Amino acid sequence: MLSVRALTFDVFGTVVDWRSSIIREGELLAAAKGLKIDWPAFADAWRAGYRPAMDRVARGELAWQTIDQLHRSILDGLLQRFNITGLDERDIEKFNRVWHRLMPWSDAVPGLNRLRSRYVLATLSNGNIGLLVNMAKNAGLPWDCVLSGELIHKYKPDPEVYRMAARLLGFELAEVMMVAAHPPDLDAAQRTGLKTAYVPRPLEHGAERRADPGGGRFDVVATDFLDLAAKLGA
Amino acid sequence: MLSVRALTFDVFGTVVDWRSSIIREGELLAAAKGLKIDWPAFADAWRAGYRPAMDRVARGELAWQTIDQLHRSILDGLLQRFNITGLDERDIEKFNRVWHRLMPWSDAVPGLNRLRSRYVLATLSNGNIGLLVNMAKNAGLPWDCVLSGELIHKYKPDPEVYRMAARLLGFELAEVMMVAAHPPDLDAAQRTGLKTAYVPRPLEHGAERRADPGGGRFDVVATDFLDLAAKLGA
Repeated sequence: MLSVRALTFDVFGTVVDWRSSIIREGELLAAAKGLKIDWPAFADAWRAGYRPAMDRVARGELAWQTIDQLHRSILDGLLQRFNITGLDERDIEKFNRVWHRLMPWSDAVPGLNRLRSRYVLATLSNGNIGLLVNMAKNAGLPWDCVLSGELIHKYKPDPEVYRMAARLLGFELAEVMMVAAHPPDLDAAQRTGLKTAYVPRPLEHGAERRADPGGGRFDVVATDFLDLAAKLGA
Repeated sequence: MLSVRALTFDVFGTVVDWRSSIIREGELLAAAKGLKIDWPAFADAWRAGYRPAMDRVARGELAWQTIDQLHRSILDGLLQRFNITGLDERDIEKFNRVWHRLMPWSDAVPGLNRLRSRYVLATLSNGNIGLLVNMAKNAGLPWDCVLSGELIHKYKPDPEVYRMAARLLGFELAEVMMVAAHPPDLDAAQRTGLKTAYVPRPLEHGAERRADPGGGRFDVVATDFLDLAAKLGA
């Protein structure tokens, strides 16, 4: 691990708890507008629409779009499906930007602050740059650099996204370690030549759906970012 | 000015004092290697090679290169011209990276910290991302986002560089204000539709070459970043 100089982080699910954040903002919206909605189901449906939408773009069936745009088109469908009425365009756009206001897992900011003393820390997300910048400002995430597949109009797990991160940061592939809660992201990073750290987030999909804490094929497995900092000597 | 949401900063000369930094590191190198060099002249010559090198790239006479690569090819010429011998490849590469370790003007960090409470702060430099990230980490520059012409393989004052910044941050052109010590950079930003703030740095080229403190055509003129924060209500 001594060769690692930079850590690149998956964001949704790895750094921030999208599900609890959407449920919480949904409840606040419901209280303000007099709605009664199953917000956990709503949050899961919103997130579930994300990968298929990116896959359609990757296959060339849709023009390239930012995640803000993909989230909005999924949201428009969900408003109908969950029978949510009485929101004007401004309400809808504000709710779509809940993804700019996601709350970090409790260990994320303290862990990143420790890691930052020793490593360059960058996002490597499919979220667009503006979303990630707003999220970092809102949640106090101390990134040294905000990187996104948006910069080359590709989404992870396209290998070009991982190569772009090493190139822009000025490091060799093996000097960069991808940190994620999702094995497919890490598998793609590993095939591309990056080091990998698996940080399972067992509550990402709620208390009922537990993630498999395996991952022996990755360079590091850590229970959270504080454990990651300890394991990486930061 | 109420519409401004993000500030984008020129870096070399505006945020950091490249000339004093190069002179200081040159003196340290000279002491270690027993050299006797006119470091102010060396620093000025290094900087003077930068715009012509970028212009050759912009005209298509050279393939696109990072500023690290341009700095290195200028440095190789200067080592000969100033008759500097006795440096091995590692010494030369380390000295080339003095641009990653430039020292901020004394008002820069406190001013950016104040501005950051109200605005999104991003670099908008021709320096490559890796250089800017290392500089920020070294100098404690609190950027929300590190942007560079490198992302689209163009250099300022190409209008595409300014447009890229607004697009990636998710703002309209008029919601972004370019901050620079160099009127040509601001003129190009203004023509592209950005707001502009002129912060003259009269010592950029040493005590003998004073900058013209004019600039009535820009939206704000400030004496330093603390004055800029006061004028922008941060």
